[in-house]
Amino acid sequence: MKTFDKNNFIQQLSIDCVIFGYSNGELKVLISKLSLKQDHWCLPGGFILNEESIDHAAARILEERTGLKDIFLEQYKTFGGLERSNRLMFESLKTLENELVAQGLIAKADLDWLYKRFVSIGYYALVDINKVVPRKMDFTESISWYSIKNLPTLIIDHEEMVACALTALRQHLDEKIIGFNLLPETFTIREVQELYETVYDKPFARNNFQKKILDLNVLERLEKKFTGAANKAPYLYRFKK
Amino acid sequence: MKTFDKNNFIQQLSIDCVIFGYSNGELKVLISKLSLKQDHWCLPGGFILNEESIDHAAARILEERTGLKDIFLEQYKTFGGLERSNRLMFESLKTLENELVAQGLIAKADLDWLYKRFVSIGYYALVDINKVVPRKMDFTESISWYSIKNLPTLIIDHEEMVACALTALRQHLDEKIIGFNLLPETFTIREVQELYETVYDKPFARNNFQKKILDLNVLERLEKKFTGAANKAPYLYRFKK
Repeated sequence: MKTFDKNNFIQQLSIDCVIFGYSNGELKVLISKLSLKQDHWCLPGGFILNEESIDHAAARILEERTGLKDIFLEQYKTFGGLERSNRLMFESLKTLENELVAQGLIAKADLDWLYKRFVSIGYYALVDINKVVPRKMDFTESISWYSIKNLPTLIIDHEEMVACALTALRQHLDEKIIGFNLLPETFTIREVQELYETVYDKPFARNNFQKKILDLNVLERLEKKFTGAANKAPYLYRFKK
Repeated sequence: MKTFDKNNFIQQLSIDCVIFGYSNGELKVLISKLSLKQDHWCLPGGFILNEESIDHAAARILEERTGLKDIFLEQYKTFGGLERSNRLMFESLKTLENELVAQGLIAKADLDWLYKRFVSIGYYALVDINKVVPRKMDFTESISWYSIKNLPTLIIDHEEMVACALTALRQHLDEKIIGFNLLPETFTIREVQELYETVYDKPFARNNFQKKILDLNVLERLEKKFTGAANKAPYLYRFKK
């Protein structure tokens, strides 16, 4: 099966994923570089097979890029502006057309399909950054983590996609208790606070925050963190599944 | 131009609209009946022209069905389950195929297109029910308002679409101050409270509610409502634009 065999896919519909990771006080997003020759950066994305739901397609695309199954995943908005012609999207693929055909990724007759206008369904995902080994696709140059505060210039409306995903993440972080998906298995309350401060880009009062998080009653207290100074060591917690 | 000329539209993508109206303490939704012969009810919907954005397509579809321009409109979720084959959707149109072709709404060669799997973008709209004159489309039997608590059985996933739209409306009602779109030009605070109580399906304490709404600082106070008993008459308000 060719990677881009138009008969296998829902026509003119794609999925783009804002994959959020967190480390060292930075919220990061996984970004692909399309080609060596040009500075075209984009969100990881893909198409929807005729025989899969859109949620399943998003999960499959995420697994392809991160190696992870069962990622926390949320559809947040569909993008269908007139400006999002795939002619723009594939401006850089244009230079790679011959290579795509030579690699057997697409039939020459199907190239036209890629240049149609695509509407794209935006999903965001939350991952434990330490568990991800980013995988580039055959037709992309590279894939890597960028701080959300220092993204390269993205193609078409992909910057708007990231901005809307961040807005959705902020709205959902409290009401749906999803933040722990960005943390490793065990963590201190201080680390949870740092995560929230990073996502909302503002400080929280320590005592209030600790009370609020513990009152959610979703954390299990484990042993103290080993710091060398036992009496000052904070407790480690784990999210109750 | 035929109503369903596949070359004019984005393929395999549709829009469905949950149009909310409010009257006499009831939240209502505009529902189409597809055919005389069968009890197939559905949300008003349509397709996206190649040369219009999805937001524009939704506004156009709403204007076609309600006669209103500049309706409050919000995209809330895209539906793409495997079960939403248009074979189901058009099960009742199937009985009307000959008529559709005879009426010149669709070319016979395009009928196959309608039976493909369509992904549908859900929008909800808020209208002043008194301003709407519901208009049925050429291929539908009728269109009318139903209380959300007493809807007919809807096709495919249209009941899920209504449920998700109501969830979105409840989430947005406070944070975005959009409820006034469901009311006539002028109203009393008591009428606003009744609207909120209807949408959330629960009572609110009167004094708290009045204070909360007035503190939003979005209402302009007008003359007293004429009730015949001037000293007990409540003030009328208008939303500041």
